[in-house]
Amino acid sequence: MQEQLVQEITKLVIASLGKSEIEDTKQLIPIGISARHVHLTREHIDILFGKGYQLNKKKELMGGQYAAQECVTLVGTKLRAIENVRILGPERKASQVEVSKTDAIRLGIKAPIRESGNVKGSAPIAIVGPMGAIYLEEGCIIAMRHIHMSPEDANNFGVVDGQIVKVKIDNGRGGIFEGVKIRVDQTFTLEMHIDTDEANGLGVGKEMGILIK
Amino acid sequence: MQEQLVQEITKLVIASLGKSEIEDTKQLIPIGISARHVHLTREHIDILFGKGYQLNKKKELMGGQYAAQECVTLVGTKLRAIENVRILGPERKASQVEVSKTDAIRLGIKAPIRESGNVKGSAPIAIVGPMGAIYLEEGCIIAMRHIHMSPEDANNFGVVDGQIVKVKIDNGRGGIFEGVKIRVDQTFTLEMHIDTDEANGLGVGKEMGILIK
Repeated sequence: MQEQLVQEITKLVIASLGKSEIEDTKQLIPIGISARHVHLTREHIDILFGKGYQLNKKKELMGGQYAAQECVTLVGTKLRAIENVRILGPERKASQVEVSKTDAIRLGIKAPIRESGNVKGSAPIAIVGPMGAIYLEEGCIIAMRHIHMSPEDANNFGVVDGQIVKVKIDNGRGGIFEGVKIRVDQTFTLEMHIDTDEANGLGVGKEMGILIK
Repeated sequence: MQEQLVQEITKLVIASLGKSEIEDTKQLIPIGISARHVHLTREHIDILFGKGYQLNKKKELMGGQYAAQECVTLVGTKLRAIENVRILGPERKASQVEVSKTDAIRLGIKAPIRESGNVKGSAPIAIVGPMGAIYLEEGCIIAMRHIHMSPEDANNFGVVDGQIVKVKIDNGRGGIFEGVKIRVDQTFTLEMHIDTDEANGLGVGKEMGILIK
């Protein structure tokens, strides 16, 4: 019964979108699923891993970023921990922890949904490395979903930096992500970034998203 | 088969002890099982819980000590965590973490077996509280089993401070703890202290141990 209801609602939703919105299936966006991760300043790497320690690359990511071999352990204000959380390099000007809502609940913290870099007044979090520990008074966020693209991509899609769009996941267990922010930069490779909750919630695997303006 | 072997070995061990050693069953020692816990300095309480924070008593223990309501989370150098570890008050001159061997394995640290207070060169450990985090370069030990007693008790048992004795656990799943150190002080109440591994290993519950010199 419930499944039938879901199917019927899905049909209605698709119908209500109108052909114009989803007809142009050339608006395809690759999707990258971000697991929880940490960005660190030089100073914090010194504390957590030892003075002058250099992060080791495990996997190249877009825009000159990389997943480091190194991990840390997060502890929230309710003293609950998530172990072995990946560090993303290179070093940043401010340390930042990006978790999913599920992680935030596990850690017992109220992490706000924010664009990367906007950590003012965000949740406190302890970060423990093999050689030390730090406590960020603020710095833990749930990353707001967004699409990275180059100016050329933006031109092709007819969107501008900062614009809010929708992205449809057409996989039978999918749906539509609303409130997706366009982020345009010459260094960006076309990719939508969602977290593990978002991916799991709409059954996102390796398929492309469909951009809806 | 294995059980039979264990029973036979047990018989042999008991026989080999000789009557003189276990005959005097008036040598009874109450046993306290210490779960993992943390002692903190005033300075570290300030960092972990906020400046001037006072620990709250949950349960009185012997010798003026108490289990605090407050807990911390431990993270070892392999970034594995043990959450909500009890603090014992009052404040001490040096912070110290006491774990079982099982805990040390879980944390991925090489904690040495030491008398309380002897932390020189012991394992490093991160301690996270709700308001901050500290990293002890040394301070994590596995407590050496011992018997606290008053000078009067020592006199009655015919032992002296620092003496090494044995304690028999006579419960059918028990055995004998060797290398048990006598610690005599006017403030001490008679009690043998073992950790959870030792208790679980010899099936110690609420029974008394039998002191064997």
